[in-house]
Amino acid sequence: MAVVVKKFGGTSVADLERIQAVAARVKRAVDAGDQVALVVSAMAGVTNQLVDYCVKISPLHDAREYDTVVATGEAVTSGLMAMALQQAGVAARSWLGWQIPIHTDDAHSRARILGIETAELRRRMAAGEVPVIAGFQGLGPDNRVTTLGRGGSDTTAVAVAAALGADRCDIYTDVDGVYTTDPRIVAKARKLDKITFEEMLEMASVGAKVLQTRSVELAMKQRVRLQVLSSFEDKPGTFVVPEEEIVEQELISGVTYSRDEAKVTLLRVADRPGVAAGIFGPLAEANINVDMIVQNVSPQGDTTDMTFTVGRADLERALSVIEAHRGEIGYGEVRADAGVCKVSVIGVGMRSHAGIASTMFRTLAEKGINIQVISTSEIKVSVLIDDAYTELAVRALHGAYGLDA
Amino acid sequence: MAVVVKKFGGTSVADLERIQAVAARVKRAVDAGDQVALVVSAMAGVTNQLVDYCVKISPLHDAREYDTVVATGEAVTSGLMAMALQQAGVAARSWLGWQIPIHTDDAHSRARILGIETAELRRRMAAGEVPVIAGFQGLGPDNRVTTLGRGGSDTTAVAVAAALGADRCDIYTDVDGVYTTDPRIVAKARKLDKITFEEMLEMASVGAKVLQTRSVELAMKQRVRLQVLSSFEDKPGTFVVPEEEIVEQELISGVTYSRDEAKVTLLRVADRPGVAAGIFGPLAEANINVDMIVQNVSPQGDTTDMTFTVGRADLERALSVIEAHRGEIGYGEVRADAGVCKVSVIGVGMRSHAGIASTMFRTLAEKGINIQVISTSEIKVSVLIDDAYTELAVRALHGAYGLDA
Repeated sequence: MAVVVKKFGGTSVADLERIQAVAARVKRAVDAGDQVALVVSAMAGVTNQLVDYCVKISPLHDAREYDTVVATGEAVTSGLMAMALQQAGVAARSWLGWQIPIHTDDAHSRARILGIETAELRRRMAAGEVPVIAGFQGLGPDNRVTTLGRGGSDTTAVAVAAALGADRCDIYTDVDGVYTTDPRIVAKARKLDKITFEEMLEMASVGAKVLQTRSVELAMKQRVRLQVLSSFEDKPGTFVVPEEEIVEQELISGVTYSRDEAKVTLLRVADRPGVAAGIFGPLAEANINVDMIVQNVSPQGDTTDMTFTVGRADLERALSVIEAHRGEIGYGEVRADAGVCKVSVIGVGMRSHAGIASTMFRTLAEKGINIQVISTSEIKVSVLIDDAYTELAVRALHGAYGLDA
Repeated sequence: MAVVVKKFGGTSVADLERIQAVAARVKRAVDAGDQVALVVSAMAGVTNQLVDYCVKISPLHDAREYDTVVATGEAVTSGLMAMALQQAGVAARSWLGWQIPIHTDDAHSRARILGIETAELRRRMAAGEVPVIAGFQGLGPDNRVTTLGRGGSDTTAVAVAAALGADRCDIYTDVDGVYTTDPRIVAKARKLDKITFEEMLEMASVGAKVLQTRSVELAMKQRVRLQVLSSFEDKPGTFVVPEEEIVEQELISGVTYSRDEAKVTLLRVADRPGVAAGIFGPLAEANINVDMIVQNVSPQGDTTDMTFTVGRADLERALSVIEAHRGEIGYGEVRADAGVCKVSVIGVGMRSHAGIASTMFRTLAEKGINIQVISTSEIKVSVLIDDAYTELAVRALHGAYGLDA
């Protein structure tokens, strides 16, 4: 008998038929002897509709009221799912964030979970009842509904699993696991049986939208065994586990890409202390996230060129900020390019193996792909290339690191 | 300065534009110096959609989960309305049933309000904030969401007004007040400035769907001054008040009709003690509401005929129940007629004036309309007639009692 938290996202509960299919699936787990707690998202499309209402009625709306409105989507699903389970013969009860309660701070619309009261949940689970917990929401210190930010139901699931000391947290999605790369680009992509938390985090941060980054961080910190699996097929998915659980680690676990990037280059920036702060301070104040940064060695000695990337959606704002601070920064010219792609190779194995980066550079060079910017972390090497070469680069790298099935 | 509770129903908050129009209207009241608490319903159509989900996912669904699901409609409106008020420059805050809390019993889906904690609401209203209260819902003794039954937002508004000791409770609807009769049938129908609680109750019970009956009962008991007025036009509506406030009472306040009736006649029923219980006991057990009952004097001495009316939607079920109990009841034949209409004249003045009923019977006789069943209460005379004569009867009675404008 295992204690398992199962989380079903919006596409898994998109309509009544799918809610009933989830109930049937949960019933099988209960019949097999597991103690199950469910976490559910809003039915697909519902949250977008509610957010749209909020934006239209008041562009600068009160985040407290936003939370009151958007948290209702998960409440509806939790009630309907409890009914579907009861109909299938499984004892079940819905739980909204304030009922458990899931205590959060008061950072409305992006609240952090502070603690979860589990005594009543444990008592009922031990008696065979399945709690159906509305994801994405909690109760703030002033007795008001809070929400955790988009994708927050993953975080709810992990936090509930940690609080319950669950054996496993299953995240059901519309993909059946984590792949070595995007199967739509590389036919030979393989589903991974296991991946480390660190690798999953790097993957999430570079565009593999399987799990919300925060939920992976929390699982890593709380040592919750995560499984990503399909809500439509009944087969094992990918386990996200601590590094020591993976005995034979491949050098590289995956190749990812992100087309959400744009490159900005400032030419002839004064080469003096404080100039980087002069550029990135104002961008940070404008809440623009800067990813890769490269400063070339100054050829003339008194000026240099500075290149960085921002989210493509932020490009126009970033250029306005740079222009507004032209005087303080001091630069000759700005060039922007939205036609770029960031391609990354990720693997904890690279900590102990040299030559990972050089394999990447050589492989891309052989295909005639120019590398515009390079950035590395302990377990990731990323390069910025011309967007047009994305598929070619990903396919070549997948083969070069021996990932092809 | 007055303390006023204002309730806006589903059509008044049907979309974002109407919500903004309500906010503008509330702002005018606040600017004029009133302390206002709002009660809002779900946006038109939302509750039906949620109820439909519940029925489809589980025909015999758990009422606790039904309440969790359907109460979300009002939560959405309360958050959006608070935003709209803030946008209009009015301090506002949404309040769900559990947050106030509005304590109810545990009769899920038809709960009764037991008490409302108002200290915090009063404090905020005194500081100029408008509480936007989600109607129709409360908090049960087991910390679960309850709902008050359809139309329950009217009851929420009256209960909040009573708890606050409000000077007035304004119920905004899609009509601009209570009329002497249906203006669609009688062009000369007049809007009443005032009507007594008792009359309003009788009107509600015979088809004038302006206010939920329970809310009027509660207002009468708690002596809350009610006003029914238009949410689309800015003019006074009809006040529902204690009888002593109406100095010059007309004999009759209104003529109403209901086409929701069906007539059932049992021929040759044994004329012995207990036979009425034998008929109406099983109907009550089947939750079928019986309205008018007439037992004719027995001509032969040993059998009699029994006629009664049920809701038209219940007719088939009523006939099944009667058939199933044929043995115990003992009757010769059953006749059913769904082509009937109940026409009523209502007025507290009839308590002290004779001749009201005879005016009714004479007026109908002059038009050649046959009266099938008669029933009377202290302030109402109802007759059952052939449905085809409805408009003729209503128009004739409206003139006969001097109600024409």
